[in-house]
Amino acid sequence: MTRNDCIARDTNDALAPLRALFELPPGVIYLDGNSLGALPKATPQRVRQVVRDEWGRDLIKSWNSAGWITLPQRVGDKIARLVGAQAGELVVADSTSVNLFKVLSTALAIVRADAPRRARIVSERSNFPTDLYIAEGLARERGLQLVLAEPDEIAGTLDERTALLVLTQVNYRTGRLHDMAALTRRAHNAGALAVWDLAHSAGALPVDLHAAGADFAVGCGYKYLNGGPGAPAFVWAHPRHAERFWQPLSGWMGHACPFEFTSDYRPAAGIARYLCGTPPVLSLAALECGVDTVLAADMAALREKSLALTSLFIELVESRCAGFGLSLVTPREAALRGSQVCFSRAEGGYAIVQALIERGVIGDFRSPDILRFGFTPLYTSFTDAWDAVEHLVQVLESGQWRETRFNQRAAVT
Amino acid sequence: MTRNDCIARDTNDALAPLRALFELPPGVIYLDGNSLGALPKATPQRVRQVVRDEWGRDLIKSWNSAGWITLPQRVGDKIARLVGAQAGELVVADSTSVNLFKVLSTALAIVRADAPRRARIVSERSNFPTDLYIAEGLARERGLQLVLAEPDEIAGTLDERTALLVLTQVNYRTGRLHDMAALTRRAHNAGALAVWDLAHSAGALPVDLHAAGADFAVGCGYKYLNGGPGAPAFVWAHPRHAERFWQPLSGWMGHACPFEFTSDYRPAAGIARYLCGTPPVLSLAALECGVDTVLAADMAALREKSLALTSLFIELVESRCAGFGLSLVTPREAALRGSQVCFSRAEGGYAIVQALIERGVIGDFRSPDILRFGFTPLYTSFTDAWDAVEHLVQVLESGQWRETRFNQRAAVT
Repeated sequence: MTRNDCIARDTNDALAPLRALFELPPGVIYLDGNSLGALPKATPQRVRQVVRDEWGRDLIKSWNSAGWITLPQRVGDKIARLVGAQAGELVVADSTSVNLFKVLSTALAIVRADAPRRARIVSERSNFPTDLYIAEGLARERGLQLVLAEPDEIAGTLDERTALLVLTQVNYRTGRLHDMAALTRRAHNAGALAVWDLAHSAGALPVDLHAAGADFAVGCGYKYLNGGPGAPAFVWAHPRHAERFWQPLSGWMGHACPFEFTSDYRPAAGIARYLCGTPPVLSLAALECGVDTVLAADMAALREKSLALTSLFIELVESRCAGFGLSLVTPREAALRGSQVCFSRAEGGYAIVQALIERGVIGDFRSPDILRFGFTPLYTSFTDAWDAVEHLVQVLESGQWRETRFNQRAAVT
Repeated sequence: MTRNDCIARDTNDALAPLRALFELPPGVIYLDGNSLGALPKATPQRVRQVVRDEWGRDLIKSWNSAGWITLPQRVGDKIARLVGAQAGELVVADSTSVNLFKVLSTALAIVRADAPRRARIVSERSNFPTDLYIAEGLARERGLQLVLAEPDEIAGTLDERTALLVLTQVNYRTGRLHDMAALTRRAHNAGALAVWDLAHSAGALPVDLHAAGADFAVGCGYKYLNGGPGAPAFVWAHPRHAERFWQPLSGWMGHACPFEFTSDYRPAAGIARYLCGTPPVLSLAALECGVDTVLAADMAALREKSLALTSLFIELVESRCAGFGLSLVTPREAALRGSQVCFSRAEGGYAIVQALIERGVIGDFRSPDILRFGFTPLYTSFTDAWDAVEHLVQVLESGQWRETRFNQRAAVT
């Protein structure tokens, strides 16, 4: 495998033209789309239109005339197509954390209505922290127990004490892809419900919530959906659950008739009751442009290219950086991977990532020891993968990273 | 009083130049800034910078280099200056509804830690619905009682059964201004805590949370703060309460060290624990521009002009539209008013508002019978008030509104 081989693969890549949908800064190899997706070319103009024309010129009328009031549903219907949900089943709202609170609360109410003694919420020990924190908060408040297990132990942990299984389909630290259908089945067989966080899978690989029999799902707008920093998140409930109970954040946008301004809450039909307050229209409009970039591709083709990219990257790093202390964390088996590759290193991981960033190769570091590289087949090329490894080789061989000094460790996943 | 008198008042108005801070469409008299504030001239350029430079060019690095990660605090400190809070006590986050859920939950925990039998949440019957819905949801979940009272009965309702008083300082339907200090004192004397929603007061009139002894407050970014449609909201806790308990939406942005990615939640010091998920940066950046327009004015001068505008409007409508069935809903006494004027009318209110909108006079209708006109002294002139009444006279005299047909009643307050 040579750089020319990679160039040839790009030439033959049917998805390569999609890179033109994005504004990517020259000289940058962006391997952090799993943290913040790149800027779609359509977004600046669309945001400008929302700000200048819809807000500035048409003012309050735009809630109707520009369709702001139905944006959560409109963008939700588009995301539904990416995750195996039907139109009308999914809305954009709030943040992933807030949406998780809503669905965990309702899912607990559903399970405990029939089985009040089920008191365990099961999750993965290295699940993304905010998912654990939200579950921990609920567990504390309701006197429940949050049980954290290693990936291979999760299925065995599900039993008659379990109320909920809560997992992120692709782990943010390892890139490991859980089998949503199998684990949901195990949860159901144990009498529990399964709640899925699609933060690292929606837009990254084919997801089929209905085929998996999932109960609830949430997901993130600013990673593979390219919605922009802090873009609002989404929430889905299986139709069999959508109208059961109130979700606890019973705000006016989830009311059956918000503009009747009645003093008593009456939840809207279906998933709309999972809305809460007034949505952030600027960020929501940008999210729609991002989702459109994913809809422009065939998801099976995206998945194929994603696995080709991550396989290539693993091969190149392992062959060219052998002896430099990098250990593959992401599953070697393609079917068990999301769209990222992670290596651990006993020391210097943070500095190595910073040295790469200084060279224009943007990945990220996840404390305490993970070097993380995200691959977004919409805009990442095989040559990018080659060049990133070339930089990594140079950083490691030169010891350049040892001189890197940084004060700040903050970065948003 | 003639139109020329109004022109003269505008000529002598020291705040008149502030109108130049806004993009206002020609031919429009905008009396709905209490629903959606107008577009500041600085906003499009700032949003463009966030989208193109910070997101598009600098990508994930902007969480640090552009200060995205501290935007909730930075904008919060600016809003703090408008509401009598100190820097570091207030953050921007989520929506008003979500923030209300947080503070009501914590306030309940504080009161009930010492007085577990206090089971009443007291509010105003015509408080904004989302406030009532959120309180209703919590009351349902916790087995508490939501007690709704008329404005003059509220103080008398507070007793040894009361846990919380929850009020919007200026009522959205009537424009009536509650005495925050007096009602907070009554709540405290009854052993309860007072939670204030500043949606129609922050940026509209001087607010002094500390002087009033308030316990918690939330407020809206898209009304008088001119933050744009669905701009994120804010939340304040008095320092004596800020670190008591976890707020229930214990997301990662409220963690003491979010980037340590630990699996257990440890709340941040102070108000930062009221953050939850990743903030919507585009909408948050726009909010900062809006807050800056309010900080450009002296709040006492804004209040003086606001009352002069609303007094003028009341006088003109009552003198020039006498006999047309309009009844003043807003308190006649200036000290009891927010920055809006509402009239009720037995029939036709919706059609009259729509006929005015067709003429470029944008107010709004609040079901079932309220014609609502908001005055934003930053950009509303005395001549605007005169011209708005002239249009109202013409609509009423011509009966034009009887021919108005509209299908949609939706509008966002």
